[in-house]
Amino acid sequence: MAVTREGETESSQFTPNTDPSNTKEFSQTLQSFAESEKVQLSVFSQTLQTPVASQRRRDWVLNVPEPPGLLSNLKTSFKKTLLCPLENKIQCLGKHPVPTLVSILNVIFPPLSWCKEYNVTKFKRDILAGLTLASLCIPQSIGYATLAKLDPQYGLYTSVIPPLIYAMMGSSRDIAIGPVAVVSLLLSSMIPKLEDPTTNPIAYRKLVLTVTFFAGAFQAAFGLLRLGFLVDFLSHAAIVGFMAGAACVIGLQQLKSLLGISNFTNKTDIISVLTSICKSMHTLNSYSFIIGSSFLIFILSTKYYLAKPINFNGSFGTHDKARKYKKLFWLAAMAPLLSVIMSTLLVFLTRADKHGVKIVKHITGGLNASSLHELQFNSPHTAEAAKIGLIVALVALTEAIAVGRSFATMKGYRLDGNKEMLAMGVMNITGSLTSCYVATGSFSRTAVNFSAGCETAVSNIVMAITVLISLEFCTRLLYFTPVAILASIILSALPGLINISEAKYIWKVDKMDFLACAAAFLGVLFVSVEIGLLLAVGISFAKIILNSIQPGTEKLGRLPGSDLFGDVEQYPVATTTPGALIVRVKSALLCFANANFIRGRILNLALEEQDEGVMGSANQNRVQLVILDMSNLLNIDTSSIAALEDLQNDLESNGMQLALANPRWHVIHKLRLANFLKKIEGRVFLTIGEAIEACLTSMNMLPI
Amino acid sequence: MAVTREGETESSQFTPNTDPSNTKEFSQTLQSFAESEKVQLSVFSQTLQTPVASQRRRDWVLNVPEPPGLLSNLKTSFKKTLLCPLENKIQCLGKHPVPTLVSILNVIFPPLSWCKEYNVTKFKRDILAGLTLASLCIPQSIGYATLAKLDPQYGLYTSVIPPLIYAMMGSSRDIAIGPVAVVSLLLSSMIPKLEDPTTNPIAYRKLVLTVTFFAGAFQAAFGLLRLGFLVDFLSHAAIVGFMAGAACVIGLQQLKSLLGISNFTNKTDIISVLTSICKSMHTLNSYSFIIGSSFLIFILSTKYYLAKPINFNGSFGTHDKARKYKKLFWLAAMAPLLSVIMSTLLVFLTRADKHGVKIVKHITGGLNASSLHELQFNSPHTAEAAKIGLIVALVALTEAIAVGRSFATMKGYRLDGNKEMLAMGVMNITGSLTSCYVATGSFSRTAVNFSAGCETAVSNIVMAITVLISLEFCTRLLYFTPVAILASIILSALPGLINISEAKYIWKVDKMDFLACAAAFLGVLFVSVEIGLLLAVGISFAKIILNSIQPGTEKLGRLPGSDLFGDVEQYPVATTTPGALIVRVKSALLCFANANFIRGRILNLALEEQDEGVMGSANQNRVQLVILDMSNLLNIDTSSIAALEDLQNDLESNGMQLALANPRWHVIHKLRLANFLKKIEGRVFLTIGEAIEACLTSMNMLPI
Repeated sequence: MAVTREGETESSQFTPNTDPSNTKEFSQTLQSFAESEKVQLSVFSQTLQTPVASQRRRDWVLNVPEPPGLLSNLKTSFKKTLLCPLENKIQCLGKHPVPTLVSILNVIFPPLSWCKEYNVTKFKRDILAGLTLASLCIPQSIGYATLAKLDPQYGLYTSVIPPLIYAMMGSSRDIAIGPVAVVSLLLSSMIPKLEDPTTNPIAYRKLVLTVTFFAGAFQAAFGLLRLGFLVDFLSHAAIVGFMAGAACVIGLQQLKSLLGISNFTNKTDIISVLTSICKSMHTLNSYSFIIGSSFLIFILSTKYYLAKPINFNGSFGTHDKARKYKKLFWLAAMAPLLSVIMSTLLVFLTRADKHGVKIVKHITGGLNASSLHELQFNSPHTAEAAKIGLIVALVALTEAIAVGRSFATMKGYRLDGNKEMLAMGVMNITGSLTSCYVATGSFSRTAVNFSAGCETAVSNIVMAITVLISLEFCTRLLYFTPVAILASIILSALPGLINISEAKYIWKVDKMDFLACAAAFLGVLFVSVEIGLLLAVGISFAKIILNSIQPGTEKLGRLPGSDLFGDVEQYPVATTTPGALIVRVKSALLCFANANFIRGRILNLALEEQDEGVMGSANQNRVQLVILDMSNLLNIDTSSIAALEDLQNDLESNGMQLALANPRWHVIHKLRLANFLKKIEGRVFLTIGEAIEACLTSMNMLPI
Repeated sequence: MAVTREGETESSQFTPNTDPSNTKEFSQTLQSFAESEKVQLSVFSQTLQTPVASQRRRDWVLNVPEPPGLLSNLKTSFKKTLLCPLENKIQCLGKHPVPTLVSILNVIFPPLSWCKEYNVTKFKRDILAGLTLASLCIPQSIGYATLAKLDPQYGLYTSVIPPLIYAMMGSSRDIAIGPVAVVSLLLSSMIPKLEDPTTNPIAYRKLVLTVTFFAGAFQAAFGLLRLGFLVDFLSHAAIVGFMAGAACVIGLQQLKSLLGISNFTNKTDIISVLTSICKSMHTLNSYSFIIGSSFLIFILSTKYYLAKPINFNGSFGTHDKARKYKKLFWLAAMAPLLSVIMSTLLVFLTRADKHGVKIVKHITGGLNASSLHELQFNSPHTAEAAKIGLIVALVALTEAIAVGRSFATMKGYRLDGNKEMLAMGVMNITGSLTSCYVATGSFSRTAVNFSAGCETAVSNIVMAITVLISLEFCTRLLYFTPVAILASIILSALPGLINISEAKYIWKVDKMDFLACAAAFLGVLFVSVEIGLLLAVGISFAKIILNSIQPGTEKLGRLPGSDLFGDVEQYPVATTTPGALIVRVKSALLCFANANFIRGRILNLALEEQDEGVMGSANQNRVQLVILDMSNLLNIDTSSIAALEDLQNDLESNGMQLALANPRWHVIHKLRLANFLKKIEGRVFLTIGEAIEACLTSMNMLPI
């Protein structure tokens, strides 16, 4: 029977043909339905199962068009993935058959879309937000540069050029660009293996700049090739665990400055750090500790009482107190700068540096110098630098896109992941040429920017200009700033990275996800940052493989009064059909890795049922039919076809038959190509109900 | 509504309750069905959808029992995998509540099960098969030892102890145990990286024995821990490709002996070997070449005309000629031994060794010596040896179990993979203590054993004793055997490893499988044996991941006259429902790696449909409902729940609703835990039909 596209018109041509016969059948059935108590097969499968209709429906299954092959599949996904932006269809160039200059410019420079509506009110708010941002950014940048084992001015440099570039190319309106804690930690934990920052700071700096260049190049390449989905490969759970672990490690690193200890370890894991602290406890400087911890308490308490707490995934907490003093929010944002000023004054006035309090000392002022000549593409470390660049690029992108998306969702606009990647890439490449290290979207500063009421990326420009002015004129003022205060400022930003409620939620919903989360956390904490990342990604993908090839089977039963079949454990109301065993594979693929196992499982299940049937009631109930529900099998391979053939032979030699129900497109196609359909001729059905009826009828043991 | 196990009794209690109302509804519907031409929703979903029944069915979905957690899942699979044999339930100890000594002995020594029925007729056939086997085994063992870069006697040793052990512990009755080509190649390609066999043959041999010990230990451990499924991780396609590649590489290695070339490369890839041959062409010894190739032609032609061709996967080819001369089969089996005898005589009589024909020379005779003192567990190479041991163990097991299963299927008995592993492990551990290298089931000799009519593993014992006698008395006779003849014998065994028809079949059925096959083949041929294996396993698992997280969606439509919905591309008869978009995810998991992508896809699809609806006919047809069919989603994670929430928000802001149909056990459970069910309250259904009806009715746009 030829299958035509008759169903395409709205009133199917098929309906009139079968109506009369169906109607008759229906009334007959209704009587028997009302009379009989032994209704085993539901009314549905009875009514439509005229031989013609049944054959027609089986033809639907058997005569499917050929599914698209590997090549055409690749072509389609190439088109969909690479040629058309994923997130924002409306902004796609494809809407304009001939792209105009304006549309191209709009795509490259997203700010052009909002600059028409920009006005003085918005500008005022942006200036305010930018200044608030700068007050937080200056001390943080210096702190993060120290964390990255660079001179303090490199942190400030990184807060000048990258924000300017991003403001022109990025599509987020809230994100605050600059150096961040996690990336600084990543650099300082991976690069010292190649060059020692204490003995050879210049070579170390050159390597950091080279890594920055590679990171930018990778990010730009991902954006151009529309590989935005790569960011998704770090699962939400892994990010939560990784961020918390990184926050702990960063906190541990800050103990060095906070306690004023010398002889600190270069390793980042908790055991090395704690051992190192215990050993150096005698070199503790109590002045440093007092200054650092008192200002830490000051910053944290202003934050707690005055700022809206925002979690890493962008949700607001509910602090009643914070709402009360909403007007005083700026105080929380300024607290770090105030602390710097006050502590600097304190040290200057008491000359505490003579009592062992470490101070920042000289910061080279002035504009960013060109660093083109510092990039190293011929050194023996270049390959390693590229590898570190790739890791840093991915982590930086993950953080930036997570932050950007959260705030975009809150304000109701959408981010294009690919464009963001391109913007980040260009900004980091430019950065690497102008003495900046890797910049990305900072979580803590973005929250401040948002709370300060920023409207557009202009706040980033204001911040960059403010930092530039400080670099030019104010670096000498920071001479007496104690190092401990920088540690306090970094420490105060860390609680936002640790999201315990999210971890609890993950534990509640998905234990395997929590495993990835915990592995990332513990890996970062006890081994190293890279191992933590690797563990998280590894567990996430292992989970996919395990879920897909899980060698389990489930027994299906009929849901009362319907032609539907469900897992008997999921639906305790489901009843089994005597004489038939209906099984479904608990995985999406029947493939080399699980086919043999599943074959054995089904065979054992069938033999068990058969034994029970014989021991139980009449011989009629003996299992004679094993129906394999294939509706959830996405694909099969040659190994699994061989296993199905074995299964069919094994069942036959035990007096049973194998029937298949509802195979999907690729599955039925491959079964046909492998000539398996001929071997179970006539036992492939559209539904389980039809399979039961047709097979048991032909075996003369239909239960009614 | 409480869900009781009311469906457990055969006549469901549910039927009487709803019968009357259903019956009325039915007749009403039948009229409208016959009259109306605009039947959009099938008769089924209308009839049973009384509010009570509908609510009851939704309660089935929503009030599922809690699915087994991670721990109980692990416990179950541990029990099923480790504690109970997979393949042969009947032999399981669990059948005997208190295991008796006999049952334990039966499990450890499977031959006990057939030894009661053993009789003189069977013994005669086994002796004949064993002698035939020995005649093939002696020249092959010497050849394979040479291939493994060991002295010839080690090949013979390996044909003595391992077959004896296997005959006591193994469950296959046909397999022929001894050194094989692929394993010899594997050893000779991996171990020389640690020790050079030409400059330091003793250290090399010690390392080979250590690797053998590790291989045996791994095999025994796999068997004891019931990790039989590990063998399945080399997919059928990968094995076909790997075997063919290995056969080509082995063939290339034999060119050295066949052409009588000196200065041969140590590498195994085709380019190095061919370059090396071209460079050394001037050292070619034409006598060697003539002797080798003429006997190769002799052996191959006897094989072609006289032996049943059996392919690696155990299927017989159909040779009319082979059937004709069935009685002369022994000639084909003896051909290698005959060639050795004739060529040795030829060289002895003509003293061709004085004209540059390389000869075997002295072979140390006598029994296997103990090699306990040669095992090295404290050398710097031990870790590496363990790694090589693991690879060799897996490859050897894969070959043995593939061969064993093929012949077991032909004779109609079953192999227990775990027991086979244990037997192989014990045999190789014992082998490593008695100067044997890694033994496994040989494909070519098993085929000969089978053709010679072996009945039980006694043929292996006969063979081992014959080889032992030869070792004791006949090694001196092999002094003048030309090396070229050993090359011919190895070459003649290779065509059986190359299975072109199987490769064609794989290409026809599954292109991705063929990719794994081709990668294994090309990897072995052009790079190295390990890389080939690694590529094959890597591609196989990458395929699983790709299939499982494929970020595609498919549109579903109603199959005419039914309540079933199918992919509109697979079933061209399927019709779409105006006002509703029904989609299914083309993968088994909605997880971090694909959730965002799929969210975007569904949103775009819905927006497109909405546009078309507006442009098309009445406003009524505008898509207002997106139904996600979850029937094939095995699992979700926290990232994907977040994506579903985003999707719901995005759809709502575009005037659409999200409904879920037929979620599976773990999915509905996690959605509940994550409070997502509250967010789409009342829009989770058992079937797509119910979802359409309920949602569109509530939106006042039911199409009828």
